Amino acid sequence: MNEQKSGYEELGFAKLDTERWERTGFPEVVFCEGKPDTCLAQIFKKLYEINGEVFGTRASQHQYEIVKKAFEAAYEEAVAGSLRYDGVSRIMKLEKADRQYIGRIAVCSAGTADIPVAEEAAQTAEFFGSKVDRIFDIGISGLHRLVAQLDRIRAANCVVAVAGMEGALASVLGGLVENPVIAVPTSVGYGVSEGGRTALHAMLSSCANGIAVVNIDNGYGAGYLATQINRLAAGSKG
Amino acid sequence: MNEQKSGYEELGFAKLDTERWERTGFPEVVFCEGKPDTCLAQIFKKLYEINGEVFGTRASQHQYEIVKKAFEAAYEEAVAGSLRYDGVSRIMKLEKADRQYIGRIAVCSAGTADIPVAEEAAQTAEFFGSKVDRIFDIGISGLHRLVAQLDRIRAANCVVAVAGMEGALASVLGGLVENPVIAVPTSVGYGVSEGGRTALHAMLSSCANGIAVVNIDNGYGAGYLATQINRLAAGSKG
Amino acid sequence: MNEQKSGYEELGFAKLDTERWERTGFPEVVFCEGKPDTCLAQIFKKLYEINGEVFGTRASQHQYEIVKKAFEAAYEEAVAGSLRYDGVSRIMKLEKADRQYIGRIAVCSAGTADIPVAEEAAQTAEFFGSKVDRIFDIGISGLHRLVAQLDRIRAANCVVAVAGMEGALASVLGGLVENPVIAVPTSVGYGVSEGGRTALHAMLSSCANGIAVVNIDNGYGAGYLATQINRLAAGSKG
Amino acid sequence: MNEQKSGYEELGFAKLDTERWERTGFPEVVFCEGKPDTCLAQIFKKLYEINGEVFGTRASQHQYEIVKKAFEAAYEEAVAGSLRYDGVSRIMKLEKADRQYIGRIAVCSAGTADIPVAEEAAQTAEFFGSKVDRIFDIGISGLHRLVAQLDRIRAANCVVAVAGMEGALASVLGGLVENPVIAVPTSVGYGVSEGGRTALHAMLSSCANGIAVVNIDNGYGAGYLATQINRLAAGSKG
Amino acid sequence: MNEQKSGYEELGFAKLDTERWERTGFPEVVFCEGKPDTCLAQIFKKLYEINGEVFGTRASQHQYEIVKKAFEAAYEEAVAGSLRYDGVSRIMKLEKADRQYIGRIAVCSAGTADIPVAEEAAQTAEFFGSKVDRIFDIGISGLHRLVAQLDRIRAANCVVAVAGMEGALASVLGGLVENPVIAVPTSVGYGVSEGGRTALHAMLSSCANGIAVVNIDNGYGAGYLATQINRLAAGSKG
Amino acid sequence: MNEQKSGYEELGFAKLDTERWERTGFPEVVFCEGKPDTCLAQIFKKLYEINGEVFGTRASQHQYEIVKKAFEAAYEEAVAGSLRYDGVSRIMKLEKADRQYIGRIAVCSAGTADIPVAEEAAQTAEFFGSKVDRIFDIGISGLHRLVAQLDRIRAANCVVAVAGMEGALASVLGGLVENPVIAVPTSVGYGVSEGGRTALHAMLSSCANGIAVVNIDNGYGAGYLATQINRLAAGSKG
Amino acid sequence: MNEQKSGYEELGFAKLDTERWERTGFPEVVFCEGKPDTCLAQIFKKLYEINGEVFGTRASQHQYEIVKKAFEAAYEEAVAGSLRYDGVSRIMKLEKADRQYIGRIAVCSAGTADIPVAEEAAQTAEFFGSKVDRIFDIGISGLHRLVAQLDRIRAANCVVAVAGMEGALASVLGGLVENPVIAVPTSVGYGVSEGGRTALHAMLSSCANGIAVVNIDNGYGAGYLATQINRLAAGSKG
Amino acid sequence: MNEQKSGYEELGFAKLDTERWERTGFPEVVFCEGKPDTCLAQIFKKLYEINGEVFGTRASQHQYEIVKKAFEAAYEEAVAGSLRYDGVSRIMKLEKADRQYIGRIAVCSAGTADIPVAEEAAQTAEFFGSKVDRIFDIGISGLHRLVAQLDRIRAANCVVAVAGMEGALASVLGGLVENPVIAVPTSVGYGVSEGGRTALHAMLSSCANGIAVVNIDNGYGAGYLATQINRLAAGSKG
Repeated sequence: MNEQKSGYEELGFAKLDTERWERTGFPEVVFCEGKPDTCLAQIFKKLYEINGEVFGTRASQHQYEIVKKAFEAAYEEAVAGSLRYDGVSRIMKLEKADRQYIGRIAVCSAGTADIPVAEEAAQTAEFFGSKVDRIFDIGISGLHRLVAQLDRIRAANCVVAVAGMEGALASVLGGLVENPVIAVPTSVGYGVSEGGRTALHAMLSSCANGIAVVNIDNGYGAGYLATQINRLAAGSKG
Repeated sequence: MNEQKSGYEELGFAKLDTERWERTGFPEVVFCEGKPDTCLAQIFKKLYEINGEVFGTRASQHQYEIVKKAFEAAYEEAVAGSLRYDGVSRIMKLEKADRQYIGRIAVCSAGTADIPVAEEAAQTAEFFGSKVDRIFDIGISGLHRLVAQLDRIRAANCVVAVAGMEGALASVLGGLVENPVIAVPTSVGYGVSEGGRTALHAMLSSCANGIAVVNIDNGYGAGYLATQINRLAAGSKG
Repeated sequence: MNEQKSGYEELGFAKLDTERWERTGFPEVVFCEGKPDTCLAQIFKKLYEINGEVFGTRASQHQYEIVKKAFEAAYEEAVAGSLRYDGVSRIMKLEKADRQYIGRIAVCSAGTADIPVAEEAAQTAEFFGSKVDRIFDIGISGLHRLVAQLDRIRAANCVVAVAGMEGALASVLGGLVENPVIAVPTSVGYGVSEGGRTALHAMLSSCANGIAVVNIDNGYGAGYLATQINRLAAGSKG
Repeated sequence: MNEQKSGYEELGFAKLDTERWERTGFPEVVFCEGKPDTCLAQIFKKLYEINGEVFGTRASQHQYEIVKKAFEAAYEEAVAGSLRYDGVSRIMKLEKADRQYIGRIAVCSAGTADIPVAEEAAQTAEFFGSKVDRIFDIGISGLHRLVAQLDRIRAANCVVAVAGMEGALASVLGGLVENPVIAVPTSVGYGVSEGGRTALHAMLSSCANGIAVVNIDNGYGAGYLATQINRLAAGSKG
Repeated sequence: MNEQKSGYEELGFAKLDTERWERTGFPEVVFCEGKPDTCLAQIFKKLYEINGEVFGTRASQHQYEIVKKAFEAAYEEAVAGSLRYDGVSRIMKLEKADRQYIGRIAVCSAGTADIPVAEEAAQTAEFFGSKVDRIFDIGISGLHRLVAQLDRIRAANCVVAVAGMEGALASVLGGLVENPVIAVPTSVGYGVSEGGRTALHAMLSSCANGIAVVNIDNGYGAGYLATQINRLAAGSKG
Repeated sequence: MNEQKSGYEELGFAKLDTERWERTGFPEVVFCEGKPDTCLAQIFKKLYEINGEVFGTRASQHQYEIVKKAFEAAYEEAVAGSLRYDGVSRIMKLEKADRQYIGRIAVCSAGTADIPVAEEAAQTAEFFGSKVDRIFDIGISGLHRLVAQLDRIRAANCVVAVAGMEGALASVLGGLVENPVIAVPTSVGYGVSEGGRTALHAMLSSCANGIAVVNIDNGYGAGYLATQINRLAAGSKG
Repeated sequence: MNEQKSGYEELGFAKLDTERWERTGFPEVVFCEGKPDTCLAQIFKKLYEINGEVFGTRASQHQYEIVKKAFEAAYEEAVAGSLRYDGVSRIMKLEKADRQYIGRIAVCSAGTADIPVAEEAAQTAEFFGSKVDRIFDIGISGLHRLVAQLDRIRAANCVVAVAGMEGALASVLGGLVENPVIAVPTSVGYGVSEGGRTALHAMLSSCANGIAVVNIDNGYGAGYLATQINRLAAGSKG
Repeated sequence: MNEQKSGYEELGFAKLDTERWERTGFPEVVFCEGKPDTCLAQIFKKLYEINGEVFGTRASQHQYEIVKKAFEAAYEEAVAGSLRYDGVSRIMKLEKADRQYIGRIAVCSAGTADIPVAEEAAQTAEFFGSKVDRIFDIGISGLHRLVAQLDRIRAANCVVAVAGMEGALASVLGGLVENPVIAVPTSVGYGVSEGGRTALHAMLSSCANGIAVVNIDNGYGAGYLATQINRLAAGSKG
């Protein structure tokens, strides 16, 4: 913990963590929701300047337009044109062109309504350099769909299981695979689904082993954790 | 609603519902837990005298001894000797000898710790005249155990699924069978299992259909409901 | 569990369960809420092509218009014209013309505000081939209204009791009828009604027997379960 | 609010409220649970000396023996002999001999397990000078028992409805009587009964009117409130 | 419970309780929130025709306009012109002209934000024939304001205490007055105020006696209960 | 508690506490949220007339415009022009010109999203005469940022720690500083952050000592409390 | 943050924080509950050796005997004889003889059942060198008792308000005094008191200002915080 | 999913999962709590016979004696003598002698009271073949203790962070290390610690990344998950 050099970039309203990559192997990313427009644009520009790329989650279409405008004003066209927004995962990013993908992560969703969170996990893992295999709509009300995909799932270094309602997909996968299952409860459901709390509690209470749980709808956290494990398995820091 | 004849037996501290069989097709049974010793013995005797048999749930060994003593004092030896207690299900009962069993109910448990509740359900259904098939320890952490029993489960008029922790057994069965699944959450588990609330909420939030839920640890209620359905399927009032 | 033939139709974002009827006696239905417009239209068309009919719950007026347009583009006028939407129950469906109804289910509501959920239950049961008797606004604050309908209620193979607030209708009916009562808590109420949780807990805690509970506002689930029971009673798979 | 004279008796660990009768029409009573033995005895003696009588709730058999011994040491035999303990209601009291009872309160219980709380309410009301009519075990699973007692219930100035589990007795009574119903939820039940919370919430959410709710198991509070109303109806301060 | 004459008016979607006045001393009133426009207008008209007056709570400005239009179409101008709406209490009503007020109820609020609920209570009590004294903004952060009004409060047959946040007004009043305090928690507050649950729980847990609690924001229920007590005190059925 | 002079200004809908400064050392301030426009303007004017300045929290832009218009109508231009609104903290105020600041309070925030609450705390403390040092975005995911500011933090008489999510900033500061830490949980976060409840509970459960907790998002309360402590440390009533 | 010298004493199972006094102005104290006997004795001895005194909270009589025996074995009689245990506050301590007390803290309790927590606060503050004034049993059901003590309470640098049930004592004091009120909710109460959660939430939601809240039953934390404030007011580090 | 060979050993009350090692790379272990004595002994013997070793968690001293006796009766002395019980972690096991340990896992605890759970994690990981480094009592109230151990912690393939109360240890570690942090909330604490729920929610809400959460007190689950990750990092199935 070096007090001589600060290790952060002071923006007044924020202190960007410039030594995070060195400390954790991952760059700082931006949680966009709730950030004021001018702050957001400034943070995106500063992180792009430091890292040559930048990744934001929970962004709105409006926020994308604000940042795009700021990039167009500040940088040449090729840079501004590389800023992308995906309305399903709500991810806004600018990636370096020469990205390499290592290992293999299986991202599974129980239903179609869980896809936004599953995509956030998948795209996060890809941004951090992991190869991702998407396997969607294999919830347990029709178990044969899951069984038919078991070989693909077992081939991954770790599995991300995204499910709302009773979240049983994580338990069923936990009993069938060898590598860790990262369980992401989603807020899909109504009544006692309690905005994802039932899925969360069910995943934490699972009778199966090897289940690592993250916060409700936290696709980003799952993609990050999956990448850490995938890197260890692939023997590379990424 | 006839106000002329009361339809109940007044004991001062209790009003035994003597027209329940006529109204619902089931006799009144006794929830023993918390009943004072003298009240309990009096209720057991009165119900035996009215119906020729009597059935109590959540009884302790101590309560059995109290009631047995009271029966020995009041009735001939053959009657008192027929009063039985089962420490696993905590059921105390005196049954008529010539019992007939109709239809078929599958009572399934996820783990060995769920057996007390599963037994309460099974013995309740048997007391009310249903044929019961017990299939225990088929929780989803080892799905092949459940799959191997699927034919027996599908042969029943209805299925009772008893499970604690994340309670996923009910969802998996709901997706695989044609007849109703009565889901009984149990208080088995710790931490966020919350004394059965997680299993309860997961069962109510199930992505599978045809799942009827009862209160936590309510094996009696499941056995009662299963009998109602079994009777309808078997075309008999029981 | 046959891995040779898949048993599902792969749509990329979804895997439609084509063997569900064979496995459970019911076709797959569509939970419309939250489904993107293009996905929804594609799912409705595919299910219509497989089954010759299709049934969706929690649909909005907007979704109906989207699907109607897609049907008009894809099919002849008679087909598209048969797609119906009911704003009270929020059901969108296309039914075969020669529908037969068996048995009898009583669908009761406590208050007028519970009617949307009661209608979802009633129309679901009808779609699955059950005869339904609707008995609305018989909540217990004026018990004589319920008592006056008791003969109709007792004539059914099973009773669906839809109630919000304290949900006491289920308990009162449970004490008066012989066949199963399927209790549906609704989110009607305010303050400690807790969006239906109080009615749900009251129904699960009932001192009456033979009460099967489903999730808050889950009229569909109640109609499905009622049909399973009604079919067993009527001796027909439907 | 007179600061000149204190209006209380200072015991060091306690300040007995000596002007409560003047202010509220009721003497101070003792909540015994958790009070250390020596404090309890001292408070009982002091209140007896001030008021000539004393009333304590939630007392244990052990506490009764402690206070009895202290009374025997301090007062003549007739006084100590008048101290009474009732194990059902857990009330310990010493009453003046010439008690008069006014008006009429109906104290109803849903089940036999609710009797301890109902008795606390009844004996509290009697101590404060109300005439009480006890009507026990009229829960709604056998509605005819309640209907048979309706005339007695309607004759009271107010009704105390004591019930656990789903607590529906209060709602049913609220729809049938003209005077206030004081609803007392009890901790009777298991699982989602949540130690009385479900009954409490159901009573507060009731679709019937004229229901005044007190804390779980608070028979004392109900007896107090019932007496206030009974006094107003009987036109007497008591 | 007479099954010969129905005691209700069948509207198809509703069964208006026409014998409620006879049974409880109060006419049926209308909870407007969530009622469809056409139903609401029909119910208002029918109740007006039966009782010559009608009272609705939780009405919106829009609903008032709908009902007004329906009254203008159905009745002569004098009737339609008598329909009133109050935006603060959200009460819509048509009252008979020759109203008499008996007894006295004090309606107290802790803060200005609690006034809508306090007004609902006050106007309800007035509609049912009680004389009401309004005493607003006497919350305990400035206790001298409450103390200055104590004589007016003590002069009432019962007190309605309306408070959000920590709801301590009810406790303080309970310790100072002789007659019942009806405590109404409001949803005023933020954070752990939990939409009124903290005030509700605090009122139920009060160390003071004689506190009758109703649901959060239930001014109507408090006005009803206060009237029951006020009538008993005034020796009149109202 | 003097009943002769009222100590408050009666506005009908409100009773302004005119002796609060004398009693507590602080003037009455206005919680604007939910106040009707006309009431708000009247309260602002009255408090300005009594104290020569006025301070409101949780004000909207719309409310500012209403009050500004009222001030322009009532007072000369210099007064109306001094009314200020800050959109970040949502504070609307009119301050006396000759303000003096004493002592020192460090207001720290964990993230940029916590700044609105931190600003409410800082500006409240400044209005009450405290000197404030703002230290933002020092959350524990990059601990070196906090460590670099430790000397500034330790120099304050007390520290305000504003944090959402897991709220660990308060615990870490509590272990590192000598003076009290006032912890303000914020509603920043999602899923199990539960609108600030997790941060609140974490702060209350802290393994560090000297942590005083206020309600979720209650920056005002923290600024008030910090000023009380700062005044005591600076030896001045303010 | 110096990594050269460790700043702690390594015991294997524990790392005693030897630089805490320097960092925070307070020595490390021992939370005894749940500590194994041998660990506890070792920790007490080590802290005594470092600081010449030692202070433990939530100790049992049994733990006192264990530690006493260990002290008798290790030290001369005068030391072992100075180890004290107080069964009310559950504090076990060995204090230096020449203790000085500064400033003034008022420790108030609402009821007699709150005294154990109030004593923990008072004795903690005294151990850390504060002068304490105890004012017990001034709960708001008899407000005149509180009013009579107001001068003593206002004379303190800060006030500790200990209350269970609805916890209104803190709010009432907050409205009447100038200095900070540290509110300690206790687990006294039953039903919706929820083991102190209702008092906690009420204190956090208070309409009065200047209230600092600590965890349920956390008398130690209140005594610590009160001492921090008292030291600042008295202008001394203690 | 082969239905020909069962893949489990049928014991009547249990179905031991004999193909779990093949499916998941881990043998079945025994959750002892709540298992009846005879069942437990039978399960231990059967698993020992299948695998040559056996591992049980949450065992009591009594259970150990029962199983030991059963082993002494069934096997030669060397086998029975190898059965071990550890009272801190509550683990009962019989291990093969030639165990090899791979990779490195750091098991950290916040306080001494968290050691039982930390030991369960550590011994589980060791049983499954991982090398474990124990680092206890590094909670954040004395942050220098954690900083001094950072090199050991960073050297591990993954970190297990065991903490109760506010659980901030996991967040602080998550911000400082590169590899995954498995967070285990413990039930240590009181009041709003809520039996570990606050630590659980804080860990799930963490502002740091790379945190995998398991159920409260689930040391076994953490040890299992840590082993999965450690095996992937060490490039070995174990």
